[in-house]
Amino acid sequence: MTRILVIQGANLVHLGKREPEFYGTTPREAYDRAIEAHARAQGYEAEVFYTNLEGEAIDRIYRAVEDGLDGLLMNPAGFTYAGFALRDCVKAVAVPYVEVHITHIEQRGVTSVIAPAARGVIYGFGLHTYELGLEALLRIVREERGA
Amino acid sequence: MTRILVIQGANLVHLGKREPEFYGTTPREAYDRAIEAHARAQGYEAEVFYTNLEGEAIDRIYRAVEDGLDGLLMNPAGFTYAGFALRDCVKAVAVPYVEVHITHIEQRGVTSVIAPAARGVIYGFGLHTYELGLEALLRIVREERGA
Amino acid sequence: MTRILVIQGANLVHLGKREPEFYGTTPREAYDRAIEAHARAQGYEAEVFYTNLEGEAIDRIYRAVEDGLDGLLMNPAGFTYAGFALRDCVKAVAVPYVEVHITHIEQRGVTSVIAPAARGVIYGFGLHTYELGLEALLRIVREERGA
Amino acid sequence: MTRILVIQGANLVHLGKREPEFYGTTPREAYDRAIEAHARAQGYEAEVFYTNLEGEAIDRIYRAVEDGLDGLLMNPAGFTYAGFALRDCVKAVAVPYVEVHITHIEQRGVTSVIAPAARGVIYGFGLHTYELGLEALLRIVREERGA
Amino acid sequence: MTRILVIQGANLVHLGKREPEFYGTTPREAYDRAIEAHARAQGYEAEVFYTNLEGEAIDRIYRAVEDGLDGLLMNPAGFTYAGFALRDCVKAVAVPYVEVHITHIEQRGVTSVIAPAARGVIYGFGLHTYELGLEALLRIVREERGA
Amino acid sequence: MTRILVIQGANLVHLGKREPEFYGTTPREAYDRAIEAHARAQGYEAEVFYTNLEGEAIDRIYRAVEDGLDGLLMNPAGFTYAGFALRDCVKAVAVPYVEVHITHIEQRGVTSVIAPAARGVIYGFGLHTYELGLEALLRIVREERGA
Amino acid sequence: MTRILVIQGANLVHLGKREPEFYGTTPREAYDRAIEAHARAQGYEAEVFYTNLEGEAIDRIYRAVEDGLDGLLMNPAGFTYAGFALRDCVKAVAVPYVEVHITHIEQRGVTSVIAPAARGVIYGFGLHTYELGLEALLRIVREERGA
Amino acid sequence: MTRILVIQGANLVHLGKREPEFYGTTPREAYDRAIEAHARAQGYEAEVFYTNLEGEAIDRIYRAVEDGLDGLLMNPAGFTYAGFALRDCVKAVAVPYVEVHITHIEQRGVTSVIAPAARGVIYGFGLHTYELGLEALLRIVREERGA
Amino acid sequence: MTRILVIQGANLVHLGKREPEFYGTTPREAYDRAIEAHARAQGYEAEVFYTNLEGEAIDRIYRAVEDGLDGLLMNPAGFTYAGFALRDCVKAVAVPYVEVHITHIEQRGVTSVIAPAARGVIYGFGLHTYELGLEALLRIVREERGA
Amino acid sequence: MTRILVIQGANLVHLGKREPEFYGTTPREAYDRAIEAHARAQGYEAEVFYTNLEGEAIDRIYRAVEDGLDGLLMNPAGFTYAGFALRDCVKAVAVPYVEVHITHIEQRGVTSVIAPAARGVIYGFGLHTYELGLEALLRIVREERGA
Amino acid sequence: MTRILVIQGANLVHLGKREPEFYGTTPREAYDRAIEAHARAQGYEAEVFYTNLEGEAIDRIYRAVEDGLDGLLMNPAGFTYAGFALRDCVKAVAVPYVEVHITHIEQRGVTSVIAPAARGVIYGFGLHTYELGLEALLRIVREERGA
Amino acid sequence: MTRILVIQGANLVHLGKREPEFYGTTPREAYDRAIEAHARAQGYEAEVFYTNLEGEAIDRIYRAVEDGLDGLLMNPAGFTYAGFALRDCVKAVAVPYVEVHITHIEQRGVTSVIAPAARGVIYGFGLHTYELGLEALLRIVREERGA
Repeated sequence: MTRILVIQGANLVHLGKREPEFYGTTPREAYDRAIEAHARAQGYEAEVFYTNLEGEAIDRIYRAVEDGLDGLLMNPAGFTYAGFALRDCVKAVAVPYVEVHITHIEQRGVTSVIAPAARGVIYGFGLHTYELGLEALLRIVREERGA
Repeated sequence: MTRILVIQGANLVHLGKREPEFYGTTPREAYDRAIEAHARAQGYEAEVFYTNLEGEAIDRIYRAVEDGLDGLLMNPAGFTYAGFALRDCVKAVAVPYVEVHITHIEQRGVTSVIAPAARGVIYGFGLHTYELGLEALLRIVREERGA
Repeated sequence: MTRILVIQGANLVHLGKREPEFYGTTPREAYDRAIEAHARAQGYEAEVFYTNLEGEAIDRIYRAVEDGLDGLLMNPAGFTYAGFALRDCVKAVAVPYVEVHITHIEQRGVTSVIAPAARGVIYGFGLHTYELGLEALLRIVREERGA
Repeated sequence: MTRILVIQGANLVHLGKREPEFYGTTPREAYDRAIEAHARAQGYEAEVFYTNLEGEAIDRIYRAVEDGLDGLLMNPAGFTYAGFALRDCVKAVAVPYVEVHITHIEQRGVTSVIAPAARGVIYGFGLHTYELGLEALLRIVREERGA
Repeated sequence: MTRILVIQGANLVHLGKREPEFYGTTPREAYDRAIEAHARAQGYEAEVFYTNLEGEAIDRIYRAVEDGLDGLLMNPAGFTYAGFALRDCVKAVAVPYVEVHITHIEQRGVTSVIAPAARGVIYGFGLHTYELGLEALLRIVREERGA
Repeated sequence: MTRILVIQGANLVHLGKREPEFYGTTPREAYDRAIEAHARAQGYEAEVFYTNLEGEAIDRIYRAVEDGLDGLLMNPAGFTYAGFALRDCVKAVAVPYVEVHITHIEQRGVTSVIAPAARGVIYGFGLHTYELGLEALLRIVREERGA
Repeated sequence: MTRILVIQGANLVHLGKREPEFYGTTPREAYDRAIEAHARAQGYEAEVFYTNLEGEAIDRIYRAVEDGLDGLLMNPAGFTYAGFALRDCVKAVAVPYVEVHITHIEQRGVTSVIAPAARGVIYGFGLHTYELGLEALLRIVREERGA
Repeated sequence: MTRILVIQGANLVHLGKREPEFYGTTPREAYDRAIEAHARAQGYEAEVFYTNLEGEAIDRIYRAVEDGLDGLLMNPAGFTYAGFALRDCVKAVAVPYVEVHITHIEQRGVTSVIAPAARGVIYGFGLHTYELGLEALLRIVREERGA
Repeated sequence: MTRILVIQGANLVHLGKREPEFYGTTPREAYDRAIEAHARAQGYEAEVFYTNLEGEAIDRIYRAVEDGLDGLLMNPAGFTYAGFALRDCVKAVAVPYVEVHITHIEQRGVTSVIAPAARGVIYGFGLHTYELGLEALLRIVREERGA
Repeated sequence: MTRILVIQGANLVHLGKREPEFYGTTPREAYDRAIEAHARAQGYEAEVFYTNLEGEAIDRIYRAVEDGLDGLLMNPAGFTYAGFALRDCVKAVAVPYVEVHITHIEQRGVTSVIAPAARGVIYGFGLHTYELGLEALLRIVREERGA
Repeated sequence: MTRILVIQGANLVHLGKREPEFYGTTPREAYDRAIEAHARAQGYEAEVFYTNLEGEAIDRIYRAVEDGLDGLLMNPAGFTYAGFALRDCVKAVAVPYVEVHITHIEQRGVTSVIAPAARGVIYGFGLHTYELGLEALLRIVREERGA
Repeated sequence: MTRILVIQGANLVHLGKREPEFYGTTPREAYDRAIEAHARAQGYEAEVFYTNLEGEAIDRIYRAVEDGLDGLLMNPAGFTYAGFALRDCVKAVAVPYVEVHITHIEQRGVTSVIAPAARGVIYGFGLHTYELGLEALLRIVREERGA
């Protein structure tokens, strides 16, 4: 069965509680439910991992890859600005990576140092961003498996 | 009925024929068919407009808006680098705009001057990019209509 | 009789309809009437030309110069950012050129690449900007004719 | 009666005597007479103040505002480059401010640090610049009084 | 009772032992005692938390806010240079934040990426910096409670 | 008796009257009273000097130093941006200097060219800033006298 | 028979009439005759196309390539500064491209954004530039045909 | 007995498994064995510590220094780009530090923010880099002990 | 009789008293005597003017020029960094200007904004700098008188 | 008889032996023969001078000019990056100078500091570059002789 | 027998005599003896070449390569800053190159323009640097011979 | 007897013959005579050395220092832009160095990379520059001898 790891970067554990101009007012549970629903509907396994430590995210990715990961979706959030070690990690593992941001990061003057390691990037669509990102990731995974 | 305008910017009229590192090898017809299929399946009207002249794209957008446009999807392609007038046009009309790029433009060192006018941006997923973009645009259109 | 060409650059055809922070809420007709009234009062001939294509503006200027143009007033609008070809055209023709912008472009972080080709620049006075610009242009034309 | 303060910044006390590429050859008296004539014709009171000390200009503006100033016209001249304190002063008082420069400052590679505090800017028209600037300032004053 | 959290960032656990040009020769215990004494004298509760991991600081702040925190004082130390995730965290919580640095960071060419999220900043006064910072924080907390 | 000079730079003479986003709405008298109260309570002599001319501030500092000054507190305000001569003056005299700003200058994109000459800097605490600054300055003066 | 397309970019339609420091005083007809003479002497077919619209140049190139173009010579002129779409077009077609400029563009501080797509570049030799460019292009065409 | 700590930064735990253009194809065990062999041959004690968390590296260094460390060799790897806190830590401890990188980091456009804290730097020699680094570090340790 | 004005800029009134790394330890009187001695020996009239206000320096120069000045020697000192108005003044008057600095300003990272207005510049020779500067100025004055 | 000096800059003595991405695989002898053949066919005298020392190139040019040089062709090669003294030399002699580069230097990110001193520049045409350059130089020489 | 060329760049002929902060106090002879001793111990032939002329270094390298060079060690010293021609030379020859610097060049703000052409770089270890560099070079030479 | 070496850098051997905007029209002989006359009048020995090779200048300085040099005067001319090796050489020798330029190098946008190694710099006084420079150098030599 296809296995997807969803990493929620620094500060996302409080999604929807605070700082609405960064992450909107949708609560974290809505994100978790949307991911779960998408996984059930499309028939794949999705694990969501929240962390405020970049090194923990790196450890989690390496472990997941060793356990047979098929695709990685990540909203780097607080790691977006200086997550160079995370970027090297994502580059080092062979698994397709899709990056998502809830808001239009460019309008906020933010550049993601991790984005160059992604197959593709989606940002600005709020809660929909995750569904679009999972949809995109799934297509890549299936295409490459079929190839 | 919901009306979507899809603008294909400079050089896209030859999609799939040349320069595969820019636009892949998928022929233009495949893009047109995918857009049409998506429109039929989701029950909205989609018009695709190809042009190599930035001013023509601007004229087309203003005319469409006057005819009652609901959403704009654009791959600015050759207009990406210096399409400032196009960006001002997109900002000036009240219609939701989603920007798409077939390839990972950031890996090629390209910054879109039009992206700041978009609700959200999707890039790097080849043919899938358009379907994801239309999906995203449709959700915005419906959400705002429902609001 | 003195002949003045007024060029309204990209996006100005919709003056007053949209994007009030760029161009205010004064409708295009008010601008046209103000120009016409000034021309009648001061006894010169003014033609206003709207276009979204930089190349069309260039063609129009060359043609006007061949027909005996005395002065050029332009609000480059959407051409402000990357209208290098237009700037070369304005430099190439010997006719005095005055540049106007309805808003305070510097406060919006905008630099006009065409301004270096102007005799003088006026910006930030809304509808009055055109009247002040025509007044300034007329004085230059008369001074140089008198010289 | 409407009261306008005209400030002539550093080095302008010698207008027309020297450095013709900065300030032309028109003598200072011609400027003073043009301002006076405009004031008489339009029925307002204009005071012209020359100073080489930025702090004196600041003092003069604060005093004028306390005496009921309606509008400020200034050619910052030598203060153009580093007059940050003057800019803060102009921002701090609620009076409309119009900035003028006799020459095309941009062609000389000069950026005015005070211009962002102005309602509008006019440059490059020699002696006419002042008349155009007073005209523009008067319209703003009257518009806001009427509003 | 008013509750203040004092976070001591990376490398501060060894205050006064080494690198005197960064942190002086005052031992860590002196800092702890000064904070405690100030809290006792002013009648509020102060907790000091030392950490070398940015993610741990973020976790600690979120937990404290949930337990009813009134104010945050932080010397980001080693997090000063690239603590973007910490900055987003501080912005996301509604609690007043005062930033302190023992030395004159600007003379060492250092810019704090977290400072923009602070109400105010105090640096360069050695051991006194903390007492001044706590004094300032307390005044803000009381003012806003009173408001 | 300890003698402190407090210099209030360009534009501060009108504190609290205008431009509240720069200097708040607290009137100048409140600042003067707070300084006076602090001096009386702590048993030192404080003189407050307002000026819009950088050179006058320089003259005042040299004269005070010759008369036996113990410490200098300054809010450079309008001199913050380009007060290089003032900075050299402050560096040249051996008296401890503490710099204060009422608002969070960094959030306004402002860098003080005089700050490198200060022992320490405090900004963002409104009226409290002066009391905190005087407190900090007094401690330095007493410490060095005791040393 | 070998077919060469010569594109004359924005503003070149008036070659020799104005702006001699950009394009010299040689009239356009002299350029046309020199190209024609070279084509006749060397036995190939040359078409010269003048345009002020970047999009028209792009359309013309695509059409020529479909009709069997062997080589492209272009003086981008006004497109030199921001002709990114044109550059992508030239890159996308497989035909050898040689870029020419009549004047020493580097001495005028100009960088061509299209030049990176050229096989080689020749500038600064006035009328001779075209003959040298055609000579160079012909050699490339023949070499690659022979290979 | 001389004690050396070898820190392997973020992502090195997977040395030789992935991303060969960063770290080559030599497995991690080969590095461990080479370090061990060098230590045995030269008669000193070497401990190798792998971590993906910058804060853990800092903690480990402080603890080692308290236990009597003689020298530090580090390949910062993923910490190279933004490891400012690590750099401050290395500066704060008095132990000689030698920095190594397996590949030619400069050819990859990478600058180490930690390198300024090192006595010397060695990069580009693959597996040999560690032996050369240990050799260099040992010489420094012995020289300073002898001094 | 030849008349030379020597302007000593901001902070120089305290030459030799303080800040020896800026101005050495030679007292101001030594400079005054050296200038006087040179004037007497060479048979010209020298006036030395000290000021901390840029605007005063400008006034003094204009007045001197009206009284028939032959040459200007200036050590701008504190005006070096941002004395743009002073530079415009020096450019505006036709009198030869020689700039001197007691220390090697470039080694201190200082660029004089006034230097471009000088005939020549001399720096780094302490007390000798003035004598060399007066010597140089005198030769220019005599050469041009002779011409 | 017309005399042309051809200077081959640093590293060109080994043309065609090594570094094919810089200089292709054509051997040096082919270049020498092509130059010689061109000279014979066109009836002028050509001397080719190879050197790795910039100062030697300068000496050679001055000597040639004294012996009556008509034109200079140079491929600066290794001097391209920092040959400022060579550039001054070329500017100082009145002889027309044409610069050539075998490869497309701009695609390699190289800017020639000597090019501003050339009448024109040709690059990217391999062996043909020299023939085209000599052709261009000869035309200039003859034109100016005829003028 | 393996042959190594050691190039000592500009100013190194006086090693240990002067400028100790650049090159330490170890005399040149100590370097020569260390190189010789290493060569004897490891059984290869080492030639040391001192020069102050970049072109001479280039000539020496080409000649050595023709005589069968196996490896190049260089301390570019004075050529470090602008030795672009030397860098091209090192790139052009196929021989492995190792670059060494006696001091920590990065701490002195120096970037080597030649380093990108090296297999690896070692700096900061004084006299040891050469031995470490020769050791590294020897390993590369033997590895590639064995491959 | 005091011994002064005067180095005339690249291109100066042709002083006065060409490029008058760089070096004026005064012939080289006039410079030589002025130096000689000054030496005779002041009773010291002056040697003038012209060279176009930076390495030769370095060799000459080292040799002179070994022969007992007292002071160095240099016009680096063509070495001004990139003479880093020369700068290191001048820094390495303990002899006082004075730098001169005939023209106002700053007005030509030139920065001397060698100037930071000088005691002082004099530029812009034509032929007088050398006499002023020798005068300055002599005073330093005598002062330090006397010290």
